[in-house]
Amino acid sequence: MKTPHEALEILFNRFEPGPIEGVEEISVHEASGRITSEPIFARFSSPDQHLAAMDGIAVSAEDTYGATERRPMRLKSGSEAVWINTGQVMPDKKNAVIMAEKLNIIDEDTIEISSSAFPWQNVRKVGEDFVVTELLFPRNHIIRSFDLGTLIVGGAFKLKVRKRPKVVIIPTGSELVRFSKLSEPLNLKEGHVLESNSFVLSTLARECGAESVVEDIVPDTSEGIREAFLKAADCSPDVIISIAGSSAGQKDYTAQTIEEIGELMVHGVTIMPGKPTIIGSIKDVPFFGIPGYPVSAYISFNEFVRPFLYRLQGMDEPKKQMVNVVASRDIPSKLGIEECIRVNLGRVGEKTVAIPLPRGAGSVTTLSGAEGIIRIPSVSEGMAGGEETQAELLVNSRDIDNTILIIGSHDMTLDILSDEIKKNTDGIRIASGNVGSLGGLIALKKGAAHIAGSHLLDTRTGEYNTSYIAKYLKGLPVHVFNLVEREQGLIIQKGNPKGIRGIEDLTRDDIAFVNRQPGSGTRVLFDYKLHEMDIDPSRINGYENEEYTHMNVAVAVLNGTADVGMGIMAAAKALNCDFIPVVKEQYDLVIPSSFVDDPRIQALIDITRSKGFRERVKELGGYDPAKSGDLWKII
Amino acid sequence: MKTPHEALEILFNRFEPGPIEGVEEISVHEASGRITSEPIFARFSSPDQHLAAMDGIAVSAEDTYGATERRPMRLKSGSEAVWINTGQVMPDKKNAVIMAEKLNIIDEDTIEISSSAFPWQNVRKVGEDFVVTELLFPRNHIIRSFDLGTLIVGGAFKLKVRKRPKVVIIPTGSELVRFSKLSEPLNLKEGHVLESNSFVLSTLARECGAESVVEDIVPDTSEGIREAFLKAADCSPDVIISIAGSSAGQKDYTAQTIEEIGELMVHGVTIMPGKPTIIGSIKDVPFFGIPGYPVSAYISFNEFVRPFLYRLQGMDEPKKQMVNVVASRDIPSKLGIEECIRVNLGRVGEKTVAIPLPRGAGSVTTLSGAEGIIRIPSVSEGMAGGEETQAELLVNSRDIDNTILIIGSHDMTLDILSDEIKKNTDGIRIASGNVGSLGGLIALKKGAAHIAGSHLLDTRTGEYNTSYIAKYLKGLPVHVFNLVEREQGLIIQKGNPKGIRGIEDLTRDDIAFVNRQPGSGTRVLFDYKLHEMDIDPSRINGYENEEYTHMNVAVAVLNGTADVGMGIMAAAKALNCDFIPVVKEQYDLVIPSSFVDDPRIQALIDITRSKGFRERVKELGGYDPAKSGDLWKII
Repeated sequence: MKTPHEALEILFNRFEPGPIEGVEEISVHEASGRITSEPIFARFSSPDQHLAAMDGIAVSAEDTYGATERRPMRLKSGSEAVWINTGQVMPDKKNAVIMAEKLNIIDEDTIEISSSAFPWQNVRKVGEDFVVTELLFPRNHIIRSFDLGTLIVGGAFKLKVRKRPKVVIIPTGSELVRFSKLSEPLNLKEGHVLESNSFVLSTLARECGAESVVEDIVPDTSEGIREAFLKAADCSPDVIISIAGSSAGQKDYTAQTIEEIGELMVHGVTIMPGKPTIIGSIKDVPFFGIPGYPVSAYISFNEFVRPFLYRLQGMDEPKKQMVNVVASRDIPSKLGIEECIRVNLGRVGEKTVAIPLPRGAGSVTTLSGAEGIIRIPSVSEGMAGGEETQAELLVNSRDIDNTILIIGSHDMTLDILSDEIKKNTDGIRIASGNVGSLGGLIALKKGAAHIAGSHLLDTRTGEYNTSYIAKYLKGLPVHVFNLVEREQGLIIQKGNPKGIRGIEDLTRDDIAFVNRQPGSGTRVLFDYKLHEMDIDPSRINGYENEEYTHMNVAVAVLNGTADVGMGIMAAAKALNCDFIPVVKEQYDLVIPSSFVDDPRIQALIDITRSKGFRERVKELGGYDPAKSGDLWKII
Repeated sequence: MKTPHEALEILFNRFEPGPIEGVEEISVHEASGRITSEPIFARFSSPDQHLAAMDGIAVSAEDTYGATERRPMRLKSGSEAVWINTGQVMPDKKNAVIMAEKLNIIDEDTIEISSSAFPWQNVRKVGEDFVVTELLFPRNHIIRSFDLGTLIVGGAFKLKVRKRPKVVIIPTGSELVRFSKLSEPLNLKEGHVLESNSFVLSTLARECGAESVVEDIVPDTSEGIREAFLKAADCSPDVIISIAGSSAGQKDYTAQTIEEIGELMVHGVTIMPGKPTIIGSIKDVPFFGIPGYPVSAYISFNEFVRPFLYRLQGMDEPKKQMVNVVASRDIPSKLGIEECIRVNLGRVGEKTVAIPLPRGAGSVTTLSGAEGIIRIPSVSEGMAGGEETQAELLVNSRDIDNTILIIGSHDMTLDILSDEIKKNTDGIRIASGNVGSLGGLIALKKGAAHIAGSHLLDTRTGEYNTSYIAKYLKGLPVHVFNLVEREQGLIIQKGNPKGIRGIEDLTRDDIAFVNRQPGSGTRVLFDYKLHEMDIDPSRINGYENEEYTHMNVAVAVLNGTADVGMGIMAAAKALNCDFIPVVKEQYDLVIPSSFVDDPRIQALIDITRSKGFRERVKELGGYDPAKSGDLWKII
């Protein structure tokens, strides 16, 4: 295992990447961003003829000698004085321009001047900018948009530039299938998984200025992989990338193959995600073995392939946009490994808060749902909540200013709220963290969120949230708004094959239950119901099996992992499960009073009161938005 | 006249730009950088089937209960234990994966385990990332490369996105001609000027994410311009840009036309270059009148059109890369106008030095030759030499670290040196400032350059540079290297129509001379020769006409502005003029001794000694590189 720095050093020392040799001739139209492969010399002077540098009249300076304020002089329009515009070519025999503002126009044929012109006054003379044969751009110049002007004026209508680096991408894995092979109605065959990494990596390569070719998916066989790698190398691309097959498993042929047919330089890097990265060469072509997990693939590409591709174009990679953040909570990390933690970002008060997302490198939404990435160095065991660090921005920085952080219990209406606020405001967005109702209140207390989403039942009073707020948010004045009321109940399989009638049946031996995690409102509610009905939890099969969202409970029921779980009706409806209502509960938004006047928060509350939001909420099923947006308590 | 800030405010208040309404359906391939026009919901769960999260064997957890270190258990390979790779779909009835590292393989059919698995261990369960119907992206989300993974896995193979902003560009000007209309051999007709701005602006627009259409060039007639503007507006683009015709001259129809057929909101902005910018609307389409000078066009576009185009895509414009610099000399500026000064940048010692380039907005090389732009605010009368400010970077920051600043007399071999050093080193570049030999020595003294290029003849001793260095660089130890020896002489018209024999003929009445500026080595040499020959300068016609480079002197002779000028033979040869040798002079590189060991400087000296450099120098004519790179004095 190498550190990322060591791996890059090995890579750069071995290949010494610089502007690539291949040359192509292109039109100046397409030249922006390309690199000259030879010096470019001017074929025209600029200007090529004497040009007016002012709007006015072109004159021969000699004709104007003697004109003064006291003894103005008259010139014949059209012959002695020729009207001319900035940038136009000077007429024959004229060598000066008198500005329009200084003229006294007597009539159509006569113009009066009150001072004499000197030769070449207000004239851009031939070659003032550059002259024929002059060097316009040296070799290896990166052409910028505005350089096109110099190229055109200098007569370089076609020019020789270095070819773009060519990247060949080879996805491997017997289980993979291209989405283009699917037809409607969409249905993946058993055992098939959609291939998506090659699209992401080829887009990233193009965004680095390279050309990319994606090869057919190669199944996991030693011969197939060897053949695909050799075939790719035979086309002499500048970089070969293989995806997946890069960990140490039974079917990992990548490292082995590279060792056999090429040179294995790096096998494993101390960065996560991205650890199983391979760097090597086949027939002297640089080779990158990129891990198959989508987040690992992204990190590994950016860490190793990206700087390499820029160097192949004579450039350093553009700097990433960074922002100072504080961690919303402790983030432990392994010693000896640099960890890239995806985070949600939002501005709470003066701070930019970074909320770590789940780390699983297989979860593509931990990247597409992130606003930033923070790095915990390999020498650190993690960072403490409240500690400062830097995050790489994955969104516009304006998006963070406009992000409302809602932490707490997950509810499907938050997705609708998020969409409606995007639709109806200028750039306000919601980032929500799913830590259960109690976790949300604690986040508010720490100043790590704008809003907590909570449905905690006080089992003594039957009232929602109030007593919990009093206990956990002592000293923090809050406004409590209703978001929705919703049906909680039992999610069961379609047609109720086990004949479940209610909570009382959950103790049956033939029934497997799936539970929610402690601290979630649903768990509190379920435990309350068990207590009310005097049922001992230990008698329930699967009470210790915990899921973190309503939808995951419904999925467990749908695929038969469990027969029944507690959750909201909307989740059951979304997955076509049946539902037995148990109770109508209250889901609230808890907002520190100091934030309530913030226009972003006001916009959010307005949305919860809107017809659009309410109608979409009703369509989900099991929701009652009658009180949505009602302020029902200030604590 | 509005300030840039006022102009932007007027623009944004009038149009309130936000993501544009037009929608198109595209394939996920092409989605990076586009903006969703509707929320995108998942059509698949992710994972869609249970997947292995480790390489190893898939088992049914129940089959493994009871296995311990002391009582290992054997499983039948292929039935009880199925080999599986990370990311592959779990076989039917299997619900856990045991890592390969924990297995003891007895034979082909038998695998031994020494601990039991629990259900769903090392398995990514259905919906762990997201479930069917879940919101993947809200409306108005800017899709990033890695979002393609989420889209594909979620089944969004096609998606609806907002159309790109459409920009119509209308170049105006009767003198303009497209380069595509020229044929070889290249020759511009009298009165024609190459149109280049539309290529630059359409490239800039595309780099902002817009689509651009360039219309035919419109001649300067009131009717033609009105018609072209109305036709453009009828296609309902998102932005119309006209180029040139935006100052206040006789043929300036743009502002007048906009006033007649639309709304004129801004006419003139207090920024230079870019002052004659127009902002308005035609049939509610935002209109920008961009000045015709290439640098003005670039600044005006970046200042007003660029932020507008980004807003039409729901984004703020990306931040420019800035760098702290010190001005190499006083830079005066007009009160009331914000000035954008193009500069060369180089690192001298600890400082990044900014050398202002000529300000002429018509000179396209003041932009394409620049490494940065500094802004002098409208409330300032300029900045002092040595004062700190910020520069917008136009090149890679690595390019500045590797820039050698050569200030002083201009010589054509510096262009060859610049090209050869680009060709033979990894990214070292030369920026040269042309201020005459004496100016170069003064720049060295101020710490504003690495090298001074000098050919100052001591008219008492006949030796070059030494006495000037002793006088102007007192206390600064320097190494003096020879760059070239070169023929100085009289540049005359082809065939010598005036029959000039030498300097003694310059006093003739029928001969017009063109001179170089005081402080240039050529001027010193010329004055020395006059003194030697006892010729009174006032007897020379044109002695007071000054040019700043050899090539400009040659151009003046070529186009008949003068009959003769003093300069180097290579300039005469380049423009096919004749040449009368007067003297062989010495052109030196003066380098502070503290810089001499710098590897960049060493590389430069090596180049001056190389065969490649010397041969190219000889080809110019009039140069003798025999002593190039010789260290001939340490002072």
